[in-house]
Amino acid sequence: MKKSIYLDNAASAPILDDVVEVMADALRTLNGNPSSTHKFGRKAKAAIEQSRKTIAGCLNASIGEIFFTSGGTEANNTALHCAVDQLGVTRLIISSIEHPSIINTANYIATHQGIEVVQLTVNEHGLIHIDELKNLLEGSNQKTLVSIMHANNEIGTIQPVDQIGVLCQEHGALFHTDAVQTIGHLPFDVSTRPISFLSASGHKFHGPKGIGFLYVNSDNIIEPYIQGGSQERNVRAGTENVAGIVGMAKALSHCYEHMSEKSDYVKELRSYLIEQLRVKLPQIELVSYASSDDCLFTIVNFHIPSSAKSDLLLMNLDIAGIAASGGSACSSGAEKPSHVIEAIGNYSENGKCVRFSMSFMNTKAELDRVVDALTKYV
Amino acid sequence: MKKSIYLDNAASAPILDDVVEVMADALRTLNGNPSSTHKFGRKAKAAIEQSRKTIAGCLNASIGEIFFTSGGTEANNTALHCAVDQLGVTRLIISSIEHPSIINTANYIATHQGIEVVQLTVNEHGLIHIDELKNLLEGSNQKTLVSIMHANNEIGTIQPVDQIGVLCQEHGALFHTDAVQTIGHLPFDVSTRPISFLSASGHKFHGPKGIGFLYVNSDNIIEPYIQGGSQERNVRAGTENVAGIVGMAKALSHCYEHMSEKSDYVKELRSYLIEQLRVKLPQIELVSYASSDDCLFTIVNFHIPSSAKSDLLLMNLDIAGIAASGGSACSSGAEKPSHVIEAIGNYSENGKCVRFSMSFMNTKAELDRVVDALTKYV
Ligand SMILES: Cc1ncc(COP(=O)(O)O)c(C=O)c1O
Ligand SMILES: Cc1ncc(COP(=O)(O)O)c(C=O)c1O
Repeated sequence: MKKSIYLDNAASAPILDDVVEVMADALRTLNGNPSSTHKFGRKAKAAIEQSRKTIAGCLNASIGEIFFTSGGTEANNTALHCAVDQLGVTRLIISSIEHPSIINTANYIATHQGIEVVQLTVNEHGLIHIDELKNLLEGSNQKTLVSIMHANNEIGTIQPVDQIGVLCQEHGALFHTDAVQTIGHLPFDVSTRPISFLSASGHKFHGPKGIGFLYVNSDNIIEPYIQGGSQERNVRAGTENVAGIVGMAKALSHCYEHMSEKSDYVKELRSYLIEQLRVKLPQIELVSYASSDDCLFTIVNFHIPSSAKSDLLLMNLDIAGIAASGGSACSSGAEKPSHVIEAIGNYSENGKCVRFSMSFMNTKAELDRVVDALTKYV
Repeated sequence: MKKSIYLDNAASAPILDDVVEVMADALRTLNGNPSSTHKFGRKAKAAIEQSRKTIAGCLNASIGEIFFTSGGTEANNTALHCAVDQLGVTRLIISSIEHPSIINTANYIATHQGIEVVQLTVNEHGLIHIDELKNLLEGSNQKTLVSIMHANNEIGTIQPVDQIGVLCQEHGALFHTDAVQTIGHLPFDVSTRPISFLSASGHKFHGPKGIGFLYVNSDNIIEPYIQGGSQERNVRAGTENVAGIVGMAKALSHCYEHMSEKSDYVKELRSYLIEQLRVKLPQIELVSYASSDDCLFTIVNFHIPSSAKSDLLLMNLDIAGIAASGGSACSSGAEKPSHVIEAIGNYSENGKCVRFSMSFMNTKAELDRVVDALTKYV
């Protein structure tokens, strides 16, 4: 049997060997509770603080601005709930293609707390209309949190976070960006950007699942969303996932080594796949932006026209050992198109969308096999 | 140098070797996102569901009643917040010696949502007065959640959860128990008990930190406290901590093997330490209940009278390689006595309390060294 091909990195990126190693070591040797004052505790605490320093360094944040969470989802929940419950926010502006951990959280807040939620529309590639945001911010004095993702997880579209940040700053709005898909892949310097909150998740950059972090700009002081002990300087209670934290920091620093070489390599893979399909299967339409200036280079989404064969495409690819996705992992089993695909146009009428998401672990030879398989199954 | 002695198992219990092994294996081989439908995803999902089955089996719960969280703290938060936000609860009854993840959560809810919080008083060993609870439940028709821990983390006192459960049932109140200190040590059959919610945490039974679970009786249907994707059957969003879940299940099943032999062994260690100190250092007072019917056998708390030497006791023990605690890990660095010690009496006036917490990994020889050290430093 041929080796499997993993092209679902946006759902979860395979963990690096040396991340597993440092985690196994942390599990074995850091057994104390990081809040304990004896040497077992101090050792665990030191590992956490070293990890925080590593991560803060990557983002050019200060150490006191990084808070560990159980993943991107909890980081997103914390930003939205704390803004509403604690910082006086009465309006949430999000986009129609945010991740469910933003959309469902905003809807929960709307239902249970009567807060206004506005969804920005997007163009056919998923880009927000910056003027729509501008008008909304100009048109109201409500205390607002704008939460717009850095890059979309299904189609890769990169939003103009710098412009959004400046607009928010001008209008006294808070700005949160869900950067779960970009951290570890694109450099992100928080010190040069007017940004209040940023979410990231370890398993999207070859770290472990179930760990993430929230950057909170030091201008904003929040109480915990998960209340209890005084861990994380009173911003996130609960005994820390020490091994997860250590593993995430290791993964992130690995991503930052030779980051531009790695991204150039993956960009080339992406261009190659787009080009091969354009030539060999012209009926397949590119959904994502072609340029990796506009689309995160790890993600490419195609529309496959409907046919008896193509309806079972993902299943056939799976049988052939190729892991791709029909959208986000959350909706990959669903028959109906995701909210993202619905938001960008009429793709669902006559076919379905398939996402291939790559990493520096993939090769051109793998993509050749994918193109062959698509030729067979489309 | 002599080998260190770890007697702070209630803060965090050292991970088992075979737990580290299954976790390293899970990290290496379960790289898919459990929500993905391809084989990488299905494999991760299967491991999660197998773990859920193991854990449900230990508690005699049904599989659909176990929900994974990032730890005991998140489980406690979920029970309290969801009861108030979703199940119509307008009053919280807790005890004065609950863990901070209950007390601070209840206080947060009181402050932000105006919900009434009542703290039950406790006797000099930390036991609640069941009549006080009875009177409160009889005296009001408010929809109430009673949250009383199974065993206290600082002094080990076991609360009468069966009686509390029956009382709650009789008065239409919901009942949550924070069983973080007992699960894995005492058997707990949820099927025979009128209980709505139960919290547990992996690292208290020799599993990893940063993973826990909430048992939710199938009579209660809750929406997630952490909103987003449809993981955990729509009760807890976020990509699952696969390795943590697998490790926690392994640890729990290990604890259930020869559970009564292990507990007999630790009970004997505990009695031995109490007896040795009674004879050799009669000025040291036992704070916990002596009998392991009334006190969790892993925990024993002593009051050390004040003296020039004893004020530095924990530090001196630490230097001697002995890890003990001044209370909970959260407050172990603090100078002032914990809320638990304050609630049970006047111990703080003339000395301080020290908790030794044991596991089946400890030995009598270690306790002899501890008694020697105490003789030296008290
Ligand atoms: C854009 C985006 N935000 C948030 C999340 C949630 O993060 P996590 O998987 O750590 O819960 C994901 C991935 O699942 C994502 O792609
Ligand atoms: C009684 C009790 N409840 C809750 C917790 C919190 O659990 P976790 O450490 O998983 O956050 C602890 C321990 O820290 C505890 O002892």
